[in-house]
Amino acid sequence: MEPVVLGIDIGGTNIAYGLCNKDGKITSSGEVPTISFSSSDKMADSLFETLAIHRGAIQAIGIGAPNGNFHTGSIEFAPNLLWKGSIPLGELFGQKFGMPVTVTNDANAAAIGEMVFGNAQDLSNFVTITLGTGLGSGIVIDEHLIHGFDGFAGEFGHIRVFPGGRNCGCGRKGCLETYASSTGVIRSIKELDSPLKMSSALNENRDWSALDVFKLADSGDPFAQEIVRFTAKTLGSALADFACFSNPKAYILFGGIAQNGPEFALAVKEAMEAELLNIYQHKIEIRTSALHDQNAAVLGAASLAWKQL
Amino acid sequence: MEPVVLGIDIGGTNIAYGLCNKDGKITSSGEVPTISFSSSDKMADSLFETLAIHRGAIQAIGIGAPNGNFHTGSIEFAPNLLWKGSIPLGELFGQKFGMPVTVTNDANAAAIGEMVFGNAQDLSNFVTITLGTGLGSGIVIDEHLIHGFDGFAGEFGHIRVFPGGRNCGCGRKGCLETYASSTGVIRSIKELDSPLKMSSALNENRDWSALDVFKLADSGDPFAQEIVRFTAKTLGSALADFACFSNPKAYILFGGIAQNGPEFALAVKEAMEAELLNIYQHKIEIRTSALHDQNAAVLGAASLAWKQL
Repeated sequence: MEPVVLGIDIGGTNIAYGLCNKDGKITSSGEVPTISFSSSDKMADSLFETLAIHRGAIQAIGIGAPNGNFHTGSIEFAPNLLWKGSIPLGELFGQKFGMPVTVTNDANAAAIGEMVFGNAQDLSNFVTITLGTGLGSGIVIDEHLIHGFDGFAGEFGHIRVFPGGRNCGCGRKGCLETYASSTGVIRSIKELDSPLKMSSALNENRDWSALDVFKLADSGDPFAQEIVRFTAKTLGSALADFACFSNPKAYILFGGIAQNGPEFALAVKEAMEAELLNIYQHKIEIRTSALHDQNAAVLGAASLAWKQL
Repeated sequence: MEPVVLGIDIGGTNIAYGLCNKDGKITSSGEVPTISFSSSDKMADSLFETLAIHRGAIQAIGIGAPNGNFHTGSIEFAPNLLWKGSIPLGELFGQKFGMPVTVTNDANAAAIGEMVFGNAQDLSNFVTITLGTGLGSGIVIDEHLIHGFDGFAGEFGHIRVFPGGRNCGCGRKGCLETYASSTGVIRSIKELDSPLKMSSALNENRDWSALDVFKLADSGDPFAQEIVRFTAKTLGSALADFACFSNPKAYILFGGIAQNGPEFALAVKEAMEAELLNIYQHKIEIRTSALHDQNAAVLGAASLAWKQL
């Protein structure tokens, strides 16, 4: 059997996993709704069984998870997961599978995935922005992924962009991810004050998804278009300020709402450019991930595992 | 003559310089108001003459300046300097003195000074915040000073904290430095809306300095105390958000208003702690510089020069 590593991307909505060989090829993969596991133990048990026939080939495990801490191997207080408190994922999978486990946050895993296999292979300084249930970020400076003093660097989703704004799962108000994420887009249907709402299909009380909003915007619904514009403007404006941190060459947008065609990235770029400090103007690219939605994070988690071997 | 390097700290208000030996001892120093030089050429000429008797001992020059760019050796569009446009300081001093010159921004220089000689000798991950005419920052991650893709990392002073807030010299609105800097403190006298103003000594129309405001606060003037509280709260709240970037172990406050006793740093810490994301709570220190007001930047610029030799 060809030696592989197991890369796991734990998101607020889905858990994606893949067996990845040394060349970055995914030889087997799957996806399950996060909500199907009432605890992280049950998830580890389930993956252990699902992967039974492959276990002999697996050499190591890499996990990307919201609030995943590289230093401790744990998920700590992730606002977008039902599993609460501190979860020692590294220990859990290590004992179950009997092999080395590396944990980092999902956005960091995506950044490594982009750097090794994706749209950041030519970049030394960039930031990935993952727009999923929440908003995560992975910061790469001079080709190094930034972990920070105790493993929690790159939580751009919790920088507050509107003082006293929307309530966030973290207990604070106005965090970027309450606006720029699939959840944020859905909240805008209810929370964005607009005269266009009354005549919009979105005025119907249904379980709308962020994808619905983007599709309606494409088909000409003015309120849906306003939500997409507002989301892009809020994100672009925040990215303008974030340039003041690490002065990146590019932001790479990743995840559900970033994959809705190039228009969204263009709108983000336009909003960012309008609000950048002059020393950064016309220098920062907005790219979208070239990897399939979940793949960058799975591949990133896998390359972390390969690195450890 | 003992070999030394020339460290220069260019600030919006003063230019400080010092000759520094290999052990970090400043053997000669001086300070001149920035406004005395109508151009950067005149400043270079003046320093060249002032240092005539020492020139034989000087081996290299390090310069810290607002918007100083490590990669290009230039100051580029510094909002707090009268010298406008792009100023090739490295070239200017190199030609005049005939020796290697290293340029970085003043806050980066201060960060290196703190790391080599000051209050950050025990830290691998920290951020210096220089509160002078403007607000600068120097980011150290895993013992490396962060320059960014093209030399402009760490411009925390231009992260916007109040959407549509105070006009900033950079042409944008609501930047942190329009609130948390000596200029910001002075602006608060006019721009902070408070019922306490009428009965305050600060209601008199005079050329107040930030130090005046701090002294009046110490002597019990309620409006001055409100300004100090507001400044500390605005800064602390911003530092809470900035933790989401590099997850530092400490912030080191430096410059005029940070040196007004430990109360200010305590107030900043309290404000920051109240607004930190839970994963950062009770982990981040607020320290003040142990080096004399201008010395960290001069020593930092000097250690940059020593590094280059």
